[in-house]
Amino acid sequence: MDRSLFEQLDKYLFNPSSVAVVGASDMPGKWGFNIINRLLETKDERKIYAINDKRPEVHGLKTYKTVRDVPDAVDFAVIAIPFTDVPTVMEDCVAKGVKAGLIVSAGLGETGEEGAKLEQEMVAIARKGGMRFAGPNCMGHLNTGVNFYTTAFFEPVKRGNLGIVAQSGGFAGHIMHCGMEMGVGFSKVISSGNEADLHLEDYIEYLAQDPETKVIGAYVEGFREGRRFLEIARETTRKKPIIVMKVGRTSAGAKAARSHTGALSGSDIISDVALKQAGVIRVDEIEELFDIAAALLRQPLPKGRRIGILTGGGGHGVVATDACARLGLEIADLSKSTIEKLDQVLPPRWPHANPVDTVAVPFVTYPCLWPIMEDENVDAVLAVASIGSSTWWRKAGYLPIAMPSHLRDEAMRWMDLIEAEEIENLDIAIERMEQHQKPIIITGMMMTPELKDAAVFKKLEEIGLLVYPTPERAAKALAHLCWYSEYLRQTGSLE
Amino acid sequence: MDRSLFEQLDKYLFNPSSVAVVGASDMPGKWGFNIINRLLETKDERKIYAINDKRPEVHGLKTYKTVRDVPDAVDFAVIAIPFTDVPTVMEDCVAKGVKAGLIVSAGLGETGEEGAKLEQEMVAIARKGGMRFAGPNCMGHLNTGVNFYTTAFFEPVKRGNLGIVAQSGGFAGHIMHCGMEMGVGFSKVISSGNEADLHLEDYIEYLAQDPETKVIGAYVEGFREGRRFLEIARETTRKKPIIVMKVGRTSAGAKAARSHTGALSGSDIISDVALKQAGVIRVDEIEELFDIAAALLRQPLPKGRRIGILTGGGGHGVVATDACARLGLEIADLSKSTIEKLDQVLPPRWPHANPVDTVAVPFVTYPCLWPIMEDENVDAVLAVASIGSSTWWRKAGYLPIAMPSHLRDEAMRWMDLIEAEEIENLDIAIERMEQHQKPIIITGMMMTPELKDAAVFKKLEEIGLLVYPTPERAAKALAHLCWYSEYLRQTGSLE
Repeated sequence: MDRSLFEQLDKYLFNPSSVAVVGASDMPGKWGFNIINRLLETKDERKIYAINDKRPEVHGLKTYKTVRDVPDAVDFAVIAIPFTDVPTVMEDCVAKGVKAGLIVSAGLGETGEEGAKLEQEMVAIARKGGMRFAGPNCMGHLNTGVNFYTTAFFEPVKRGNLGIVAQSGGFAGHIMHCGMEMGVGFSKVISSGNEADLHLEDYIEYLAQDPETKVIGAYVEGFREGRRFLEIARETTRKKPIIVMKVGRTSAGAKAARSHTGALSGSDIISDVALKQAGVIRVDEIEELFDIAAALLRQPLPKGRRIGILTGGGGHGVVATDACARLGLEIADLSKSTIEKLDQVLPPRWPHANPVDTVAVPFVTYPCLWPIMEDENVDAVLAVASIGSSTWWRKAGYLPIAMPSHLRDEAMRWMDLIEAEEIENLDIAIERMEQHQKPIIITGMMMTPELKDAAVFKKLEEIGLLVYPTPERAAKALAHLCWYSEYLRQTGSLE
Repeated sequence: MDRSLFEQLDKYLFNPSSVAVVGASDMPGKWGFNIINRLLETKDERKIYAINDKRPEVHGLKTYKTVRDVPDAVDFAVIAIPFTDVPTVMEDCVAKGVKAGLIVSAGLGETGEEGAKLEQEMVAIARKGGMRFAGPNCMGHLNTGVNFYTTAFFEPVKRGNLGIVAQSGGFAGHIMHCGMEMGVGFSKVISSGNEADLHLEDYIEYLAQDPETKVIGAYVEGFREGRRFLEIARETTRKKPIIVMKVGRTSAGAKAARSHTGALSGSDIISDVALKQAGVIRVDEIEELFDIAAALLRQPLPKGRRIGILTGGGGHGVVATDACARLGLEIADLSKSTIEKLDQVLPPRWPHANPVDTVAVPFVTYPCLWPIMEDENVDAVLAVASIGSSTWWRKAGYLPIAMPSHLRDEAMRWMDLIEAEEIENLDIAIERMEQHQKPIIITGMMMTPELKDAAVFKKLEEIGLLVYPTPERAAKALAHLCWYSEYLRQTGSLE
């Protein structure tokens, strides 16, 4: 992407000084109602102009009949009106010198030939005036760095370093919710809609250059420029990972995709092999996208695929082993000295092998974790129902309502100490993770949802370590990490 | 299972009048501490006796040095002491006439030959006195119907009709947490441990006869009596579904299972085919077990595998279609009359095909659901980001803090009406589900976690409809439902 286009998008699409909302409305349920609300809520220094030719005022703002009537310069216009009126509005925008736009209006290219023609008309008008636009048939975009949101129906998200392009507005929203739920922050999110002007490939190229974005994620129904995508990806993935969820894999799904955003999933298929060769991490579900994104954002890349499993429960260890083995990860052979070190911590009945089952002995997680991390035969650690367990014991300590109060007080003091100790240990774990360059993937299977507010989990979120809900999902994230690390090594991108 | 064994387990293992806790303790972190707490917390009319030969009092209860010293009859003993002392305690139990026991103590059969010998000794002692026991190396059991829990470290669960046997205590706990999180209630849960006396097969047979249990779930590391299991399963599944999560599928996993509970996953393998022929639903993850269990507990069995998809977002529809097609479900061809009915509800730009994408038009979920349910070409409905959406719109209505207050009040009143209407429609949906005998599987992808407290979700939980977090998981549950329905039809078990 040439520098001037990058700057146009960076300045006018993602960080405009002045915004016109065409179709701004006071009617709850209307797009123009929620969009202007969101913009007013998050405006900071940004100027917001309401365009509405039927009412003198919207949300307490004086309205203008057209974009042309705004007295000051307008950088960016968001357009949420019936599709038949969009070309006229585009003419207004170009006349006004608007540099970027986002068209929410649907009923265009996705519905057939007539709509596609209307789209081409919009593109022709925009080109004439050097304006670039997102959509139509899209759900908005956002830039957390400058608190700028056109995503009307979704709450503001946490700031972070994951950049997202989604060829479905509803899915963009779903992605934002997933991020909030999983504690992953975003740099930019774009719902690309029908991509009449700006394509998925443009956004990917933009995010590749965007310093706020460290990992790129995309929900793809169809590549409009498949070859270009692969070229961009091949170059980008050497420095910045790209994760793709490509839907329409089945013929029924491809058919559904076509009637959704008119995406060409049938005619421009990029095979799994081609994506792999370009270093792209492919996922099947949005949750999987976040699982690997969170790991890439925080964890070192492992040097191999030998996994050390630390488990608080034997069954969890078996399930984790199965999950790793199914995905082609190796269960590390622990070195003799590691076994000896663990013998000093665990009672004789521990299985003396990987997975390291702490046989329901409480509070031995970290004394067991350190030797596993130090072991030269281990490239990465999968901690199942072990890290975070002080919280669980604390909860167990809370439980007994039948307990005499002097015992309860004592138990609680003791639980507080245990929890504080675990929080300290987490800082050490992070240090050692960096020192040994070994990722630590955490599965919190013994945790109930309310535990998410516990101090240990707050700490984990603060340091950016995701707690994976199942060993299956944790193992998948690990497998992706290993694969990406191997890809970088094989292509000489890692020293 | 002969009637007398069923009654022995039913009366003494699952509903004893008097319980001795051997190893009852005042020390937080000890098993005997949490077990007696839980028992005291949930005791109702049950008599609890603390056995401890070092302290005169535990938790305010007078202690007895041995089970023999308890002045009254003891039905059931839970044993949480070092394994070397267990045989002596068993002798005491038998002398006292204890009918059933549960041994928490670990360090036995799972550690090798010596431990296995000790286990055989325990079995011999128990047999002598007609006592049956669960464990050793187990984490307790529960019977919600009579509020009886020996599962020390996990909170009481919701009462319901799912019966669980787990060959891992930690996993039993994980299962209980999953149930709570997903709103699924339990009849009984048993952590079977090393199964020295009572085997997984015994518990399955017990649950098959237990009227409180409508669906049986099992976490299995190894079948000790594989042939017997298949016989029981073949008979049971004609009336009551059995869902099995069998781990140790990979050789690494099997090895881990062996050192966990000494399970014979290597030497007594039941193939997928044999399980299928016995009508057993096999799952790979605990979440999947609940997904299908919840559906079996509430939904009718579909007559075929033609799925009608109703979606609030095009992308969600594509993903759902992919998920269904991948699992061998058919995307139903909607009849002409259904398309016509939908045309009266949706704007012309809707895709006129299955999946029925409501193209971001709010509040058309139910007017679209009814014709899909009535369609003779549809056997089951998958509702993606559609049912429950009033809650989401309501949330969107809450968002605008910049909104003038008179508008906000109006918006809120309107949202209340929409939500109340959806709740009424859910009652109608349940009626029609029964009337047409077509399951409705709901995926709530646009929902954030806090929405779980919203009225619509409370209603869904009350009527027992699970909200599946992803289309993938919903489609898997549907595929299991379809398969089980076909199995019953093929074996002549369904009229």
